Amino acid sequence: MKLQHPPGTKDFFPEDAAKRSHILDTWRRVSIRNGFELVDGPVFELLELYKVKSGEGIVNELFHFQDRGGRELAIRPEFTPTLARMVASRANALPKPIKWFCMPNLCRAERPQRGRLREFWQWNVDVLGSDSPIADAESILAAVDALHAFGLRPEHIRVKISHRQTVKLVLEKLGVPDEKIMPAFELLDGRDKMTAEEFSQGAAKLGLTPDRVERFDQVGRMSYPVGKLDAMARALSLEGLESMGELMALDETLRAFDIADWCEYDMGIVRGLAYYTGTVYEIHEASGAERAIAGGGRYDKLIELFDGPPTPAVGFGMGNVVLEHVLIDKGLMPTDAMPRPDVFVIALTDDAAKALPGTVRRLRLDGWHTRFSYRSSRNVGKLLKEADQCGAVRALILDDGVQSGKAKLKMLQEQGREREVPLENPMTPEPKVEAD
Amino acid sequence: MKLQHPPGTKDFFPEDAAKRSHILDTWRRVSIRNGFELVDGPVFELLELYKVKSGEGIVNELFHFQDRGGRELAIRPEFTPTLARMVASRANALPKPIKWFCMPNLCRAERPQRGRLREFWQWNVDVLGSDSPIADAESILAAVDALHAFGLRPEHIRVKISHRQTVKLVLEKLGVPDEKIMPAFELLDGRDKMTAEEFSQGAAKLGLTPDRVERFDQVGRMSYPVGKLDAMARALSLEGLESMGELMALDETLRAFDIADWCEYDMGIVRGLAYYTGTVYEIHEASGAERAIAGGGRYDKLIELFDGPPTPAVGFGMGNVVLEHVLIDKGLMPTDAMPRPDVFVIALTDDAAKALPGTVRRLRLDGWHTRFSYRSSRNVGKLLKEADQCGAVRALILDDGVQSGKAKLKMLQEQGREREVPLENPMTPEPKVEAD
Repeated sequence: MKLQHPPGTKDFFPEDAAKRSHILDTWRRVSIRNGFELVDGPVFELLELYKVKSGEGIVNELFHFQDRGGRELAIRPEFTPTLARMVASRANALPKPIKWFCMPNLCRAERPQRGRLREFWQWNVDVLGSDSPIADAESILAAVDALHAFGLRPEHIRVKISHRQTVKLVLEKLGVPDEKIMPAFELLDGRDKMTAEEFSQGAAKLGLTPDRVERFDQVGRMSYPVGKLDAMARALSLEGLESMGELMALDETLRAFDIADWCEYDMGIVRGLAYYTGTVYEIHEASGAERAIAGGGRYDKLIELFDGPPTPAVGFGMGNVVLEHVLIDKGLMPTDAMPRPDVFVIALTDDAAKALPGTVRRLRLDGWHTRFSYRSSRNVGKLLKEADQCGAVRALILDDGVQSGKAKLKMLQEQGREREVPLENPMTPEPKVEAD
Repeated sequence: MKLQHPPGTKDFFPEDAAKRSHILDTWRRVSIRNGFELVDGPVFELLELYKVKSGEGIVNELFHFQDRGGRELAIRPEFTPTLARMVASRANALPKPIKWFCMPNLCRAERPQRGRLREFWQWNVDVLGSDSPIADAESILAAVDALHAFGLRPEHIRVKISHRQTVKLVLEKLGVPDEKIMPAFELLDGRDKMTAEEFSQGAAKLGLTPDRVERFDQVGRMSYPVGKLDAMARALSLEGLESMGELMALDETLRAFDIADWCEYDMGIVRGLAYYTGTVYEIHEASGAERAIAGGGRYDKLIELFDGPPTPAVGFGMGNVVLEHVLIDKGLMPTDAMPRPDVFVIALTDDAAKALPGTVRRLRLDGWHTRFSYRSSRNVGKLLKEADQCGAVRALILDDGVQSGKAKLKMLQEQGREREVPLENPMTPEPKVEAD
């Protein structure tokens, strides 16, 4: 009876865990230097919480269950409802802007496929309590800062930015009636996953004439670099609109943050979710081969939906699965992400073996990653081989010298260079030798 | 409709998350320096997996559900079955000893009470593939190293060590028949939670005469320091037994690791779980006021139960909930665990405000935790107050000096000491002034 992990989940053996740590640690480091504070919520919530934001339809996508008190619970499929609940419960007490991040594991009861697993980790970064486009820009900055920290560069990445109100106006000008704006958003959002014919049929259902369908398709393919918003406004006859004003302010801040070359405007980006109210963005690998690396935007009405005070908000989610594919494809996933032992202690005599545990303990107390052999072998070759196999940087060799408080420190990476060191303080730096 | 987190779970606002991070980060740092490698498994497993180790009885303690394929799944209530499954699946390929740790969130469908929540984090540390008492000692060393790193000292903590086979022999000598050894273990394990009368009744049910009941009670209260095993062996007439030989070797290694003063032998410790086979231990706060901080021991047969090859193993689990109570009680939980901004950048003129975002971006790229105000205020007092409120160590003040590439760096903690710095490299260390 060999039991396996459930389909769509992963076992993290040490090398896999090290890769995941590389991603989570980078997210955390970048979050902190960008001034975001770590938060978290329970791994399961009341099922009701997810219906508030997403309606009854969400239930099928959740792993849900009852507790013994008959409460309907669900494993979290996303963090935003928890975030909204937490902010709503303390909104008036929290200093603004609220800048929070978290890196929860999330579960979705969907069919596993490339880029989508049933359990995954998602970096959530949100700025709440500010309606300034600086907040939108700072959320994008955090995402770009992380991608940069992973070794990605502007040529690998497209941050595609749009604005719900702007796209809505364009759609209205094309003749899409108000009640069909959400279906039109969904059609634009799903465009990359359907054939040209499917798209045309969908557009026709919105009541568009064939020439308007073509124009709709064109709008969905329009892309302008940062700094060229005025050209976009002219092409779409959007000059002077309030939402264009917001994009203009965002544009200016993206340039001031010096991340313009990562970003572009793309009117085909609307995000499928009903709760976005302003700026929306998706981050893609430049070739478009993978699903989105991240997606986000402004959601100024959500905290009220969770019974909180009016609280403008903007943020994004970035999953670990697509990101890991991209990093591996670009050769940017470290192959040696596992922590290497600083020192492997070996004993070549029985007396030396008595001094070994105390030496190991002292080294660890001083913060050194220290290992030793469980074997009773005194064979230096075998023991050094074990040190080498676990990737140790140095071997500390205890032999007859321990009687006089001495040991040998051998660099395992530099042609085995070796020097005598005091047993009490074996990692003391090598004295600098003056050049002749 | 104010929705709350489910009972027995917690919201981690920034200060709570910082406290949890203090615990998880310390566990991780100590694990790595002790030579353990991070692993992890899915947050839910096949329900069947938990029955293998714990039988049908476990199902009531789990949050379980079906996926759309009708698979019975459960949120993990412990990590050991996942560990055993992972080791069993690759046992022959993994170099020995296998030294793994993880820090999973676990969920149990029980009534929340002090020291027990429905979701919690547990540090798991295991050594597999070695039957040497050095492995037992090294697992205890890792636990002690962590408690020491949290600021706890031997006077705060008792690592209570026992041995299943030794206790079994003592019970046999008292006349407990073989088929009642497990109930006797459970009685000893639960002794602290029952009255003297309940304990006597339980002992009588094991077939013990009143004088044997008293002796049984005495055995459960016996405690000997490390280094005095011989006295315990004499008191219990256990000289020369194989299991005492294992304890003797453990005793020697605990002393060699210099952690003897944290530990003692306590024949009342047996651990309730059926799968322990040798050494068992529990870590308690010295006064005994709280539940166990950690519990573990040797489980040499478990990997075979999961269809792996014979693989001796020893390890422990340490939860975050009791540990957090103990650290708070002792005043050892840092009150300032939240990351402080290294620098808060403020602009006092409109020109300076244009230079602000680029300055922020450069500081962050250099790794500095950098914040700034979203407000358009140019009032130095208000802006410095905002810097102060978020705990920033320094303020970088941009004013008319930016035209000539200068800014002011103000230490917010040292009576506001201020100096001029180059805008391009504002965090450059202060030049050392030679004493007269």
